Amino acid sequence: MPLEITHLFGLKGVSREDIDTILDTAVSFREVLDRPIRIVPTLKGVAVLNLFYEDSTRTRISFELAERRLSAEVVSFSKSSSSVSKGESLRDTVRNIEAMKIDLIVVRHRSPGTPRFLAAHTGCRIINAGDGEHEHPTQALLDMMTMRRHFGTFEGLRVLIVGDILHSRVARSEIWGLTTMGVRVDVCGPSTLMPLDMRGFDVTVHHDFDRVIAEYDVIYMLRIQKERQPAGLIPSAREYTAMYGLTKDRVKRMSPEAVIMHPGPINRGIELDYEVADSDRSLILEQVTNGEAVRMAVLYLLSGRSEQ
Amino acid sequence: MPLEITHLFGLKGVSREDIDTILDTAVSFREVLDRPIRIVPTLKGVAVLNLFYEDSTRTRISFELAERRLSAEVVSFSKSSSSVSKGESLRDTVRNIEAMKIDLIVVRHRSPGTPRFLAAHTGCRIINAGDGEHEHPTQALLDMMTMRRHFGTFEGLRVLIVGDILHSRVARSEIWGLTTMGVRVDVCGPSTLMPLDMRGFDVTVHHDFDRVIAEYDVIYMLRIQKERQPAGLIPSAREYTAMYGLTKDRVKRMSPEAVIMHPGPINRGIELDYEVADSDRSLILEQVTNGEAVRMAVLYLLSGRSEQ
Amino acid sequence: MPLEITHLFGLKGVSREDIDTILDTAVSFREVLDRPIRIVPTLKGVAVLNLFYEDSTRTRISFELAERRLSAEVVSFSKSSSSVSKGESLRDTVRNIEAMKIDLIVVRHRSPGTPRFLAAHTGCRIINAGDGEHEHPTQALLDMMTMRRHFGTFEGLRVLIVGDILHSRVARSEIWGLTTMGVRVDVCGPSTLMPLDMRGFDVTVHHDFDRVIAEYDVIYMLRIQKERQPAGLIPSAREYTAMYGLTKDRVKRMSPEAVIMHPGPINRGIELDYEVADSDRSLILEQVTNGEAVRMAVLYLLSGRSEQ
Repeated sequence: MPLEITHLFGLKGVSREDIDTILDTAVSFREVLDRPIRIVPTLKGVAVLNLFYEDSTRTRISFELAERRLSAEVVSFSKSSSSVSKGESLRDTVRNIEAMKIDLIVVRHRSPGTPRFLAAHTGCRIINAGDGEHEHPTQALLDMMTMRRHFGTFEGLRVLIVGDILHSRVARSEIWGLTTMGVRVDVCGPSTLMPLDMRGFDVTVHHDFDRVIAEYDVIYMLRIQKERQPAGLIPSAREYTAMYGLTKDRVKRMSPEAVIMHPGPINRGIELDYEVADSDRSLILEQVTNGEAVRMAVLYLLSGRSEQ
Repeated sequence: MPLEITHLFGLKGVSREDIDTILDTAVSFREVLDRPIRIVPTLKGVAVLNLFYEDSTRTRISFELAERRLSAEVVSFSKSSSSVSKGESLRDTVRNIEAMKIDLIVVRHRSPGTPRFLAAHTGCRIINAGDGEHEHPTQALLDMMTMRRHFGTFEGLRVLIVGDILHSRVARSEIWGLTTMGVRVDVCGPSTLMPLDMRGFDVTVHHDFDRVIAEYDVIYMLRIQKERQPAGLIPSAREYTAMYGLTKDRVKRMSPEAVIMHPGPINRGIELDYEVADSDRSLILEQVTNGEAVRMAVLYLLSGRSEQ
Repeated sequence: MPLEITHLFGLKGVSREDIDTILDTAVSFREVLDRPIRIVPTLKGVAVLNLFYEDSTRTRISFELAERRLSAEVVSFSKSSSSVSKGESLRDTVRNIEAMKIDLIVVRHRSPGTPRFLAAHTGCRIINAGDGEHEHPTQALLDMMTMRRHFGTFEGLRVLIVGDILHSRVARSEIWGLTTMGVRVDVCGPSTLMPLDMRGFDVTVHHDFDRVIAEYDVIYMLRIQKERQPAGLIPSAREYTAMYGLTKDRVKRMSPEAVIMHPGPINRGIELDYEVADSDRSLILEQVTNGEAVRMAVLYLLSGRSEQ
């Protein structure tokens, strides 16, 4: 079934049906990944441009591998944001690239809205690989796939996102996607790292991690960006860990069937204890593998090939 | 028909027959680009090295895409010129690369003559992707393809190149190629940006853009390099635009069927008005698409595969 | 025949049988390289990650080409060592990459032991492309292939390695591999560039190049790293060349059938005279071509595909 959306800017406004289609398609690609020969000819002759204006190792490699495994023609371009900060120049760059007959653009940019801007000025299909503090939809989709595979269903699932909600594009996409699927999502963290106004979101804000940890099936830990410390938003790392880190002791308070997730890369010893990240309860590496499958699904569904 | 040339260093000295063969071949590849599946197996097993010693986004992406769409094996290497400024080191680098059984090298380097140097020291076929202020032949070929497609013929065509002729490798290749095809090419710009001696070229030099603009079928605007301002070669940007910019008002003076071309990237508001670049008369994006086709044609014809 | 080793960390401890298998397989891939269409479908669907934490042009291009010619899916990642100096972060990076279903990792890193570290923390097959001053096994294997092809056998062969033995990972791999095959290897250089204790190695240390040069079949010149001069390890370049450079005059003292080898890149005029590097006696470019074949062989044999 074709998607209603023609681009993937974020999960806000994406329908339950579209999310289901993406996750179901990802499940079939996950089967491809579990074979010894992990390549399909699906996107042969489709040209994909990776436009990474922000540093990224994992997301870029994950997308590139997904594209190559679909047999697409892949061209990548990385640049720091500084030299292309003017919208005009970005528009010209992208219209030129489109004129080279590019079908899909995967873009990461520090400015929120860049993916919509590209879609407005080209005929290419756009996939947002992270735009500033706005959204990071493939991360949320791979997390949702991981939860659905682990628990078998979204029904009755309760997810707690812990950490820097204010600056996190992952948290935003996660909340939009999960609430669409009927999952109860709440957030927990210091008030300095909470949006002033959470009214747009149907979530409860907690500040006392220990008091609520036992109530959730998924403890989703966000990465703490150490560079925010000087700004006074975060107390010392030690203090942060004491209150919001997922330590071995705190894991004991979790519900017996609950799991741990993290978008990576981990600050071990800060938001996650060393042993906790590698424990049986951690789905972190499973998230990464599902990331391949979800990115293959999104590339395939948006390429238009699925409709032929 | 095989080409007389075995490398593409520039368009100086390239025969009318060779240019015709390249443009005709490019027309067939342009058809491939207009299909939904834009890939052919033509260069399977042929190894192409992209050696970009100068920054380039569009030209590099355009070549890489052309190579992948021909199914070549592609390896790319980018480096600032500084660390490889010594010819000896470049020679050793390239002889080593040749020993890895590379068939074609696409090279961009700030030193004029680098492509000839590589050809002299390796058995690889060389394609010049821009060497200092010397030549940029694939740019001129794609421009010529665009003109021939638009007007149906080169016969009777009159082209005016406007801007910094002195430093432009595009202008040089354009003049060599177009005059070979019997096209009348003239140039226009401030005397500080004109070569002291244009006698090698069969062109007329104009300084008054307004007076001559109506006489041409193609107004080819060169990019102004802002970094040349401090050297006193260019007056203020505003003054330059007033005299040599293609403003909306100036477009009205153009011949009714005349078109606008530019090699990109555009300095909007300086050599081209914002609206002018996107107007019906602009062939700029058409140039970019034809660039793909011309590069595929050159790669194919020089690879030797066409002779088998 | 499958290899006994499952990773290629170095040549220390690698059996004679394994080295024979690799070199024999490389001979068949060398035939592929001598064809007009240099590609085989052998590793289709196998994903290879090139993880280069140290600058490298030739080795990276050589591996990438080898991977593409085997039809593997290739993803490359280059980064200076500084930002990933902590083992923990490297471990997380690699476990994540493994979770993306990578089969083979080719790694270059300034820290000795990095390849073993990766193997301990992932299920990927690891190929060492140079780890600090420890080993560079594919370089030694391609050198051994070159010697065996040139002389027809390892039997009775005498090799002299000249230069900075102390810091050379090439020298170490060379000595381990060649002595395993029964080749007599000796070393020559100033005492400041010799390990204090050569007792682990079955080699004779020479200091007088002129006195012993005539006794060897292969004069293997190491690259002098000019940046070691300030540390007082090397006298002036001129003095070094006078004592240990392979000058035209010194070549005359070589045994009539003896050949010259060098791992590249060459400091022409320092360890090798200009004309000497390009003379009939030099196997330097042959080494580079064999490098392609050896890397294809190692990738293929370690991929597990050879056992299917």
